[in-house]
Amino acid sequence: MVDLLGVLAYAELSAFARMTEDATSLAPSLADRAALSELAVAEYGHFRLLRDQLTELGADPERAMAPFVDALDAWHTQTAPGDWLQALVKAYVGEGIAFDFYREAARRIDPPIAKLVDVVLADEGRSEFVVERVRAALEADPVATGRLALWARRLVGEALSQGQRVAAARPELARMLVEAGADDQAEISRMFARLTEAHGKRMTALGL
Amino acid sequence: MVDLLGVLAYAELSAFARMTEDATSLAPSLADRAALSELAVAEYGHFRLLRDQLTELGADPERAMAPFVDALDAWHTQTAPGDWLQALVKAYVGEGIAFDFYREAARRIDPPIAKLVDVVLADEGRSEFVVERVRAALEADPVATGRLALWARRLVGEALSQGQRVAAARPELARMLVEAGADDQAEISRMFARLTEAHGKRMTALGL
Repeated sequence: MVDLLGVLAYAELSAFARMTEDATSLAPSLADRAALSELAVAEYGHFRLLRDQLTELGADPERAMAPFVDALDAWHTQTAPGDWLQALVKAYVGEGIAFDFYREAARRIDPPIAKLVDVVLADEGRSEFVVERVRAALEADPVATGRLALWARRLVGEALSQGQRVAAARPELARMLVEAGADDQAEISRMFARLTEAHGKRMTALGL
Repeated sequence: MVDLLGVLAYAELSAFARMTEDATSLAPSLADRAALSELAVAEYGHFRLLRDQLTELGADPERAMAPFVDALDAWHTQTAPGDWLQALVKAYVGEGIAFDFYREAARRIDPPIAKLVDVVLADEGRSEFVVERVRAALEADPVATGRLALWARRLVGEALSQGQRVAAARPELARMLVEAGADDQAEISRMFARLTEAHGKRMTALGL
């Protein structure tokens, strides 16, 4: 449980930082910059909830996050967006994967985190502005579609690869996320398959 | 009025971005990183208030901020902190200068902004953690005091120089901030002197 809250907390804290950086360096206008920053600040709000929940459980948030810093930082380094559209798609895809994990977690665990998951998932609509902007950009420049679709696949590929790395290093965490009673690699793969399917639906929403 | 809200809005938005970046790249621990990120998120909250106030007044927030982007970005570029202590001092000094401006503004202008100023100034205590951390660091390493004091002087020097640049380009804004009826450079200088004095008090608080 502490592992789960720890990985989610660092995921939110690092997403907050990278989204803010992308907003600042890549947004084509101050309004776009504010829109992506707004999303980043919502991530920070989730981080705060997770950190407080860890403290409430008597855990040290810093120690709970530490095992996941390298994998998440590696994901961000390998997926640094090169332009504004890539930044938008990354925000949307990254958020989507995080929300899927919250949902997987909520299916299996205790009430304290279930309430937290509700609060976080209430923010799911926030990234809808991304869908509008990406669709508008692709209408104006259909040639960009292939390139962005490739980018989205790379995002999820790198996420799965870091996810497998974390699952291998923290088998209890992985077991917690898969169906009760299951503890083999096949079940973990099935969970990743579910996440991949959810990702596919988001790609359709983006027009990719 | 739109100029005043615009400069404050961009000051908050850019402070949010830079503080987040400094927190991410310079904090020695995840707890420190969260503490400075928390301050950054509060800045974003101020930005949101200012932007909404601009919209309420019928102004375009983006256009209101645009004239001040260069001066504030220049300040941040010239004062990129080289280490964690410099980042803390910059956050404290930068916030302090901003709060002084809010107070100067509140002394002279309309009720709508006066309420906003109250909300922003209620956050003034947030940066107190900086005072504790800087004092503790200087107790552990008194030799750093001179170097940090120099850094703080550079921060305020660069701020005054960008401030003069903005005042020269937007004389109505400058006049709005100085004593009623005054419109000469001497009055503007007196305001800067007040800001400098407030800065001195903050330096004493930091032990610099």
